[in-house]
Amino acid sequence: MKVYDQVVELAKRRGFFWPSFSIYGGESGLYDYGPLGVLLRDNIVRIWKESYLADDAIFIDTPVIVPASVFRASGHLDKFADLATECSKCHNRQKLETVLEASGFHNIIKTVPEANEFLANNVVKCIVCGNRITSATEFKLMFRMPSQGSVGDLYLRPETAQGIFVNFKLLNNFYRNRLPMAVAQLGKGFRNEISPRQSLIRLKEFSQGEVEVFVDPQKKFWKDFTGSHRLNLLPRSGAPVTAEVTSSEAFPLMSSNSMSYFIDKTASILRDVGINLDSVRFRQVPLNDLAHYSSDTWDVEVRIDDDWVEVVGIADRNDLANHEKSSGETMSVKMEDRTITPSIIEPSYGIDRIFISVMIHSFRTRENGFKVLSLPESVSPYHAAVFPLVNKDGLDKLAESFFASLRKKDPYVVYDQSGSIGRRYARQDEIGTPYCITFDSQTLQDSTVTVRERDSAKQVRFRTDDLVSAGIIGNPAIRDAFRPSVPQ
Amino acid sequence: MKVYDQVVELAKRRGFFWPSFSIYGGESGLYDYGPLGVLLRDNIVRIWKESYLADDAIFIDTPVIVPASVFRASGHLDKFADLATECSKCHNRQKLETVLEASGFHNIIKTVPEANEFLANNVVKCIVCGNRITSATEFKLMFRMPSQGSVGDLYLRPETAQGIFVNFKLLNNFYRNRLPMAVAQLGKGFRNEISPRQSLIRLKEFSQGEVEVFVDPQKKFWKDFTGSHRLNLLPRSGAPVTAEVTSSEAFPLMSSNSMSYFIDKTASILRDVGINLDSVRFRQVPLNDLAHYSSDTWDVEVRIDDDWVEVVGIADRNDLANHEKSSGETMSVKMEDRTITPSIIEPSYGIDRIFISVMIHSFRTRENGFKVLSLPESVSPYHAAVFPLVNKDGLDKLAESFFASLRKKDPYVVYDQSGSIGRRYARQDEIGTPYCITFDSQTLQDSTVTVRERDSAKQVRFRTDDLVSAGIIGNPAIRDAFRPSVPQ
Repeated sequence: MKVYDQVVELAKRRGFFWPSFSIYGGESGLYDYGPLGVLLRDNIVRIWKESYLADDAIFIDTPVIVPASVFRASGHLDKFADLATECSKCHNRQKLETVLEASGFHNIIKTVPEANEFLANNVVKCIVCGNRITSATEFKLMFRMPSQGSVGDLYLRPETAQGIFVNFKLLNNFYRNRLPMAVAQLGKGFRNEISPRQSLIRLKEFSQGEVEVFVDPQKKFWKDFTGSHRLNLLPRSGAPVTAEVTSSEAFPLMSSNSMSYFIDKTASILRDVGINLDSVRFRQVPLNDLAHYSSDTWDVEVRIDDDWVEVVGIADRNDLANHEKSSGETMSVKMEDRTITPSIIEPSYGIDRIFISVMIHSFRTRENGFKVLSLPESVSPYHAAVFPLVNKDGLDKLAESFFASLRKKDPYVVYDQSGSIGRRYARQDEIGTPYCITFDSQTLQDSTVTVRERDSAKQVRFRTDDLVSAGIIGNPAIRDAFRPSVPQ
Repeated sequence: MKVYDQVVELAKRRGFFWPSFSIYGGESGLYDYGPLGVLLRDNIVRIWKESYLADDAIFIDTPVIVPASVFRASGHLDKFADLATECSKCHNRQKLETVLEASGFHNIIKTVPEANEFLANNVVKCIVCGNRITSATEFKLMFRMPSQGSVGDLYLRPETAQGIFVNFKLLNNFYRNRLPMAVAQLGKGFRNEISPRQSLIRLKEFSQGEVEVFVDPQKKFWKDFTGSHRLNLLPRSGAPVTAEVTSSEAFPLMSSNSMSYFIDKTASILRDVGINLDSVRFRQVPLNDLAHYSSDTWDVEVRIDDDWVEVVGIADRNDLANHEKSSGETMSVKMEDRTITPSIIEPSYGIDRIFISVMIHSFRTRENGFKVLSLPESVSPYHAAVFPLVNKDGLDKLAESFFASLRKKDPYVVYDQSGSIGRRYARQDEIGTPYCITFDSQTLQDSTVTVRERDSAKQVRFRTDDLVSAGIIGNPAIRDAFRPSVPQ
């Protein structure tokens, strides 16, 4: 059984995520985050956010409803579409790319005439009924709301980026007209996918963390740095290479210092949230497969079973010129020696795909068949669980009172008193809780409890008052007791 | 000049919020949160969230795109509409309620025939051109997306609540079939307002924090508690009263213990984020003005200049029965002695309105005319600002190095080296930064700096290494030095 399938099963059973609106038959491409999913996702987002705060990024939040004029300027109204096929027999609709790949073709086809010519000359079959596919159409990917009182049509944004671009002058003024400047936005994006699939991997409504880094267009320089990871790189031309990306050495491979810097930074973020960098690759997108707005893009892909899934894209964009032209407002900045219109390096993070990658890369099965999510303690939904070994002899009262005190310091703790202790450990292992704290008969004598570490299942006794005063996460005594088996 | 107008001016100038898409002429009812707005709003949301975590609430996140079937069941498809008027002369559109009030009528009118009869018998005038208004129409408030590949039409949700209701059984299973159970959701809601107005107060796209508290329908009991505030209460019948809401005494005024508890809790949250409870009132909604889903509602209204603005609504709802009927899925829970379908108490927080209320209630003008946001330190966008008095003698290097160390402990600090020191203090006062840390000539001798507290403008010297090791917010030495002038 694929790890993906095991994680999706666990996710629904334990409250991480599940298909939306299922009591009404559901709607493809829409998923709910359950109670544990929200906690895990919030932690992933926090790590992403703090990483960019440390780089002096500013954060804004703009509406998901956007008037047509913005997407006319950005080119999305015209160009943001997929080629689609509909089987004339069973009426199944797919992306052209999907049916081509299923029939063994890996061509990149960009226009309807090109597609129709290819389909006339090659046998491409419906992936459901096997009927031959002979024509393709263009399918617009933005959700449109016809005017219902507004001046023109409204659209749901397919990316958060445009909300930043249209505010460039205001933001650069806030930033005292300096460059480079990084502006980030966390929010929802929407794409009317032809064939949503694989739970969180292709959604109609998804969460993005996009960062627009405005740089001098000549040098596209962010800052000098030394790479901190050996990364699997697949450049557009030349052989794959595993190398450290540094500001100088990697330069020949990448279009700019900014591109190199944000590739290395992205690796740090992915590692910190719990993704295994050995199963990550950085792939430079072929020129004929670039989005309409980009002159260069590196996709960051994570291995899930036998597939590679894009979780981040780092694009070199040039949107300000379009908005300058369409709006008539200047988008230029006066620098010491000249007036420039900044270029944009955009690391764009697919939060849902990162989320499921974290679950998949953390998933283990013990020898006894029990499942464990070996999440880094900084992203685990709960930091610790508190158990009374038995619900008598005052142990339950002691444990409850300890739990109440601990929770005042750390809201992310949970109490469980039902079932055998082994079963309670197993429950917490499955949802990634790094530490379980058990009150037993010895507690009544010396006020100590066992702390059990998830990955090693090793147990060490601590005094209850020490745990309350120093907390669980970041408590050096706990860290020392379980080193080196402590979660990363 | 109204405080509201002064705050809106400050908000745009300093990067809290501004109208969206202005380079393309804008779109009414859509606003951006700027860099400081995002920080302030995130802090308000954190306080709300932690308050509900402490009450054992679970949090979920469901899509904003919702299939029609859900809103057919909830009644929104049919009933979620406003009565609207359009002037036959100038074509200005308004809510019926707005034009009635402007003409001095405070009637509650619920149907088109009722409205048309009233307009025939009373002189009601267009608020723009003064022409007489003679008819009303129904205006649907949900944004509709005609099917673009989906099974049926899709809607943007007008409230986050339904995403929780349709998951009730799954969530209650996660919660081990216990009651009462509180489920919260923070997210966007959308209403196609006829006449958006007053920046963040009536938006087409807004942020909500909704909590659905599922209780036994007989007693609607949450827990015993003692009220912690004297609240201004306006019951539906009877005289206004200022009183503490406790679980027993206030019971006659309110429909249930849950209603009382969440009214008192809401007061605590509003106070903690910086709203002055003397300028808050709790108004029980008249029976003929209740939303279609509610049998009892208390609106929490905040004074803004001479207006009262609803920022929270606490409703007694009964939605599960509708979903049970429409979906055919059971929504009942087996309790010890009987099977019940829970009632719902719903505290629903309008995050944008709370946000602007916090800014308005924190806004002060000093005797010299300078503006100050006296925000509680737990919600201030920045915790501290660091300044070198002059950019020479090594002071700037020392200050930069201190800033880098401080920032590693607390990302919410800012560095400013430009302009006179008075001007820098004024800049930080305007955005609510509680403490400014200045490096001056004495720093070179004894490694101390001045810490200036915002509200009192009092300055006290501290050692730099003490500030780095103990941080700024929550540092007891800082708290003691400025007591009692320290911000709440």
